[in-house]
Amino acid sequence: MNNTQKSLVALLCVLLLFFGFVITRVGVSKPTSAVKVTKIPAGEYDPAVWGQYYPLQYASFKKNAEMAPSPGGYGGSAKVQNSERQPEILANFKGMPFSIDYTEDRGHVFAMEDIRETKRINAKSPGACITCKTPYLEKFYKESGWGYAKTPLTELLAKTPDHGFISCANCHDPATMDLRVINPAFVEAQQRRGIDVSKATRDEMRSYVCAQCHVEYHFEPGTNRVVFPWDKGLKPDQIYAYYADKPAGGFAQDWQHPDSKTAMLKTQHPEFETWSTGVHGKAGVSCADCHMPYTRKDGQKFTSHWMTSPLRTLDDSCSSCHTQGTAWLQERVKTIQDNTWQLQHTAGLTVAKAHEAIKKASEKPDADQAELANARELVRKAQWFWDFVAAENSMGFHNPDQVLNTAGQAIDLANQAIQSAYKAAGLTL
Amino acid sequence: MNNTQKSLVALLCVLLLFFGFVITRVGVSKPTSAVKVTKIPAGEYDPAVWGQYYPLQYASFKKNAEMAPSPGGYGGSAKVQNSERQPEILANFKGMPFSIDYTEDRGHVFAMEDIRETKRINAKSPGACITCKTPYLEKFYKESGWGYAKTPLTELLAKTPDHGFISCANCHDPATMDLRVINPAFVEAQQRRGIDVSKATRDEMRSYVCAQCHVEYHFEPGTNRVVFPWDKGLKPDQIYAYYADKPAGGFAQDWQHPDSKTAMLKTQHPEFETWSTGVHGKAGVSCADCHMPYTRKDGQKFTSHWMTSPLRTLDDSCSSCHTQGTAWLQERVKTIQDNTWQLQHTAGLTVAKAHEAIKKASEKPDADQAELANARELVRKAQWFWDFVAAENSMGFHNPDQVLNTAGQAIDLANQAIQSAYKAAGLTL
Repeated sequence: MNNTQKSLVALLCVLLLFFGFVITRVGVSKPTSAVKVTKIPAGEYDPAVWGQYYPLQYASFKKNAEMAPSPGGYGGSAKVQNSERQPEILANFKGMPFSIDYTEDRGHVFAMEDIRETKRINAKSPGACITCKTPYLEKFYKESGWGYAKTPLTELLAKTPDHGFISCANCHDPATMDLRVINPAFVEAQQRRGIDVSKATRDEMRSYVCAQCHVEYHFEPGTNRVVFPWDKGLKPDQIYAYYADKPAGGFAQDWQHPDSKTAMLKTQHPEFETWSTGVHGKAGVSCADCHMPYTRKDGQKFTSHWMTSPLRTLDDSCSSCHTQGTAWLQERVKTIQDNTWQLQHTAGLTVAKAHEAIKKASEKPDADQAELANARELVRKAQWFWDFVAAENSMGFHNPDQVLNTAGQAIDLANQAIQSAYKAAGLTL
Repeated sequence: MNNTQKSLVALLCVLLLFFGFVITRVGVSKPTSAVKVTKIPAGEYDPAVWGQYYPLQYASFKKNAEMAPSPGGYGGSAKVQNSERQPEILANFKGMPFSIDYTEDRGHVFAMEDIRETKRINAKSPGACITCKTPYLEKFYKESGWGYAKTPLTELLAKTPDHGFISCANCHDPATMDLRVINPAFVEAQQRRGIDVSKATRDEMRSYVCAQCHVEYHFEPGTNRVVFPWDKGLKPDQIYAYYADKPAGGFAQDWQHPDSKTAMLKTQHPEFETWSTGVHGKAGVSCADCHMPYTRKDGQKFTSHWMTSPLRTLDDSCSSCHTQGTAWLQERVKTIQDNTWQLQHTAGLTVAKAHEAIKKASEKPDADQAELANARELVRKAQWFWDFVAAENSMGFHNPDQVLNTAGQAIDLANQAIQSAYKAAGLTL
């Protein structure tokens, strides 16, 4: 080998070293995406049809049929009555359907089965109830606008086949697979906040598709139009202020509590609201980042469509940001949830005592009516704050400091209601 | 240029590229450390002497003399009476020195000045009070063991020069500059938990030097020995259980509340306890990591000895882990602290009402004495939980979920105390 040849060999070695280094550092070996877009006909709502073209996503989606308690001990997808663990539910929702039937939420694939079976629905229930249960919402809204919300629910249920549970078409454009929302209530509520959903980024859409349903809402009296009460903000006190000011359409109460005779509000499941002001929401971590993490199968990278507790997918969901290991992560979640459950349960029990105290005070013949009105306002607000925590499906995790503060305020307000009831009955120290 | 020359030029180019790449990726250009160990004589407690050899550290240490409210709006180092913002302090500490004088903590360099001036100290105060104020503690303990704690404070103060405030020798071995603790109470408390402080890692020491003082403690009756009540754990309920079981030496109360006639406990400043069960503590982030961050001056990297709120040093303190920018970080801290303050203040006010309710109930001639005893136990515990939050110097930041839960429990317990007082007075609905 002459000197020129030696130089060339050395050059080759250095080049090999260099490219080897670059490849390991820059990670050229990313797995290829499994998504190859196939156009699905508009109006095709059967997930099995979509699944033929997106087999990995569909296989993961079918895992939503698995029923199990959450590994964290709170929530989960087993069909149990929440009142077993929280007897305060029976007292606080007395006189309304949630005291009769309030099961833990099951997976999206049970949406049609559960709406047909729940005791909260009857012959008078409006079509509005179907809004978040099926992609057929798109069809119903296209056919009759908000008119569908006034149509009897039974009529719409009859038009919805068994495969019409929440699935692909709720969140995807069938032609492009782009993310989309089909619930007009979400689009309208965002519009009132000055947000144009049609201009959302893909990252925003990764939360918006969930936010079209995982939120607080009410039905507008008369029209049954679905309304998200976000005009004053997304925090529990801001939404309470919205209801206190009697929103357009005259909505003022969900029901009257039969014991305390209070005009009550039922919080729905304000996951989006709670997350959006919490640390993950503020950091731009979307719902899908944690609940539908990127995962790998057969060398292909795809979005898991098993919408489940990240406690079941800690590595995929959390470890790309939090590197302390799954045992550590689990312990942090447990700490937050245990702390939240304790205050939530205390708040719920105290609200129940407040209803009872107001009932007893109001039975006194010379009870102070102005003070009773004050007590009722206090228990209404206390229950709202408690329910905002209890109805939300993360046991505080979506926003620990706000949720714990809300539960603490509920305890305070419920006790103020009790004090006020005593005062109304002339009992003072 | 012939082919061999061309090859050599190409080789040179690739080599330059390669090393340039390696240097930028691996960061060879780390600044050099400014620490060059100089042996200081044992028993030298004047920081100005140490400062001659450690000028960067000393210059930053002198910033502890700056007095200003915290940029977050809570705490800070300005000398203001806490009762201005929290009038509940006057009610809840009635009958004991903290209702007379309870100023916001100032920097370490004011320790001697403040102990000489505070109205909480008088001619009868024991030497134990000097424990956390001066490195002369080392000398006093060497001379007479725990006997110093029974010596009159005035005697020890007379032996401590003005430069004897908390400084270098509290945390550093003068010969090696290794971190050390000089408070025997910390070493003993850790020993009872099965932790040998002499075997601590440097990372652990970066919290232990602070933990020798930023903790809850009491003086053992008779001996005035300083005791950290950690035998059952570091959480507020575990420390309360320790006191409930009457610890060795018979310590049972700090004082009796003159209105409710309750045997009360005063929480000190449980920063270490609160941090250690929080997310930063559990992640191994030490006190020094945030409050004494590595910083740079004139190309030299050193540990800042300005022990201050990380809100003043967000870039150095937080940004190496949290990359969202200082405005984002500030907003997260504000959210946690605002949520905490609201519950803490509510809890404090409710505890004050409980003392008053018990006082009024106990004045009724036929008050139920057993129920009154129950009410007193409830207000004792409520105030402990409130004070564990209020006396801790982070307004919830060191452990948001635990602190908010503790404040929420305080609200609940204080209201239970009020209910119990009503019951004792025969007032029931």
